Amino acid sequence: MKAARYYGKEDIRIEQIAEPELRPGTVKIAPAFNGICGSDLHLFHNGPMGRPTADTPHPLSGETLPVVLGHEFSGVIEAIGGGVEGLRVGDSVVVEPLMVDGTCPACKVGKYNLCEQMGFIGIAGGGGGLSEHIVVEQRWVHPVGDLPLDQAALIEPLAVAVHAVRHARAREGQVAVVGGAGPIGLLVAAALKAKGVTTIVSEVSGTRRAMALSSGVADAVVDPTSEDLAAVVAEHTGGAGAELAFDAAGVGAVVHQLLQVLGAGGRLEVVAIHTTPVELNLTGQLIMGDHEIGGSIGYASNHPEAIELARSGKVNLAPFITSRIVVDDIVTQGFERLISNKDSEVKILVSMR
Amino acid sequence: MKAARYYGKEDIRIEQIAEPELRPGTVKIAPAFNGICGSDLHLFHNGPMGRPTADTPHPLSGETLPVVLGHEFSGVIEAIGGGVEGLRVGDSVVVEPLMVDGTCPACKVGKYNLCEQMGFIGIAGGGGGLSEHIVVEQRWVHPVGDLPLDQAALIEPLAVAVHAVRHARAREGQVAVVGGAGPIGLLVAAALKAKGVTTIVSEVSGTRRAMALSSGVADAVVDPTSEDLAAVVAEHTGGAGAELAFDAAGVGAVVHQLLQVLGAGGRLEVVAIHTTPVELNLTGQLIMGDHEIGGSIGYASNHPEAIELARSGKVNLAPFITSRIVVDDIVTQGFERLISNKDSEVKILVSMR
Repeated sequence: MKAARYYGKEDIRIEQIAEPELRPGTVKIAPAFNGICGSDLHLFHNGPMGRPTADTPHPLSGETLPVVLGHEFSGVIEAIGGGVEGLRVGDSVVVEPLMVDGTCPACKVGKYNLCEQMGFIGIAGGGGGLSEHIVVEQRWVHPVGDLPLDQAALIEPLAVAVHAVRHARAREGQVAVVGGAGPIGLLVAAALKAKGVTTIVSEVSGTRRAMALSSGVADAVVDPTSEDLAAVVAEHTGGAGAELAFDAAGVGAVVHQLLQVLGAGGRLEVVAIHTTPVELNLTGQLIMGDHEIGGSIGYASNHPEAIELARSGKVNLAPFITSRIVVDDIVTQGFERLISNKDSEVKILVSMR
Repeated sequence: MKAARYYGKEDIRIEQIAEPELRPGTVKIAPAFNGICGSDLHLFHNGPMGRPTADTPHPLSGETLPVVLGHEFSGVIEAIGGGVEGLRVGDSVVVEPLMVDGTCPACKVGKYNLCEQMGFIGIAGGGGGLSEHIVVEQRWVHPVGDLPLDQAALIEPLAVAVHAVRHARAREGQVAVVGGAGPIGLLVAAALKAKGVTTIVSEVSGTRRAMALSSGVADAVVDPTSEDLAAVVAEHTGGAGAELAFDAAGVGAVVHQLLQVLGAGGRLEVVAIHTTPVELNLTGQLIMGDHEIGGSIGYASNHPEAIELARSGKVNLAPFITSRIVVDDIVTQGFERLISNKDSEVKILVSMR
């Protein structure tokens, strides 16, 4: 079968590989659409993050590079293995693309996003969505009903947003500031809106601010380089400050700015990856406001809620699909365009043909 | 009447001043015992923190220096002003030593510990516990029933601990690591124990570790300079890591150490004041563990719970009273001894005679 395989930095090859075999407890899926994620970009432009490498296998998949790419994907069930119940051939599904240990302390309490060994299907082995067929354990397969398969490819990043919003304990009627309107910032804002939270999106790119407004996920947008974010927040909160803020930018200055607009007892949730440390004045920025800072990663048991939000229309994923390409063009029209057109692209969907 | 007044750095004078007058809505109290707090020490050794100074009044009290000292105190009601209900002459009471604006956004939602103008009685004016009489608005006066007046002087710092433990959402059955066994660390551990939380106290001073054990607030103590804190935490949590940690040390290295021993989804509560910024690796130290860091200050509506904990015996305050002195000796036997004997003293109680 045809597959896109990752060999290392700037080395992705479209090639013919053996079709995976159905096993008891698994289903075989024909992938439909794959989103390209920040992690894929990082892999392509910077090389492997940890295991697997060409020499060192991932402990759960046992695979070394190359591996099939693609972890944000939808598809249709082609075959059902022995012992699998509740799924049928022809079902539209998404895959929660995880491999977990199952016995570590985090797994034992259901927080498998924090599994000590955790690996992503489509990054760490186990096949990937950028192939004609993939075989996945039933546990990770979620039916999406009549949700269109293109939108379904965005369920994975929406699950990240749902997890972050839940981790931050967001409640109806609150006001939240979202710093950064890249894919995750937009989806966090969408998940907040679905919960009845008023969202103020702070973003330097005019193109991204326009997307935050046109997609309906922002009640207000602010350019923090030319507008007074604190004044806009004060306007929406009667001077009290925001109950919630989300850092979806991964920039220290944004963290400082968001802490500044929190009201008494407010919470900042850090969703973005930070590559450099951030210096915090714990007394002034945290203690003196009874504030809290949470950080959240991935998802654990959040896919059903994400699917329900998209199916019910509380979150409309369609506006975030900004391009569609075929796998043969993934480098030029995918990885390279996400760098050159980074403000106008949200999700580029990749299909096998 | 006799009072200890604060004039500025290293300048406290015991002098005769006019007795305050009872007004409608207030009660007159004869203070019994005052605890000396870290803030008092800071005032004495380093000078005023913000307003008031000799020239600039505090906005709520309208007073400039000198002011009467003493904000952790118990006493007995001597007289009741017009319109005051539910309090009687002869009642043992403690004072929640606050002056608040009442109209700022934090006050409006009951988070008056975060009042924009907040001042402490006994620091910012309004009289203080280190005098023969004080007149206080009824709102701040809490009857303590038959709780001994010496122990009652520790209700104020216990309320700080109760607020922190509540802010951290501590629950029965959890395991918490408390970093630092000064007065606040010990009382945090006491409040945690009262909630059914297992406490591991990490403290470099052997004298303080001994106090944490002998007072019954620590289930285990660790010297982080010679013992393996992570191993002790693992032992108490089946390898899962702690659900909670409290920084009662105010040292960056302790923050880093406590974050390291948190389990999946664990929370660090910063209670201590930090005078220098702390550099955090948000991705590694926060996001990758679904962790959160809270900071909490003071108290708001926590005195009733603190009093109930002490009255019921769930928290035994007696072990934390390590010395008793009279106000005339406050400098040599109070402020100076808390520096020279800092490991063996927890609370020095000061009475007027």
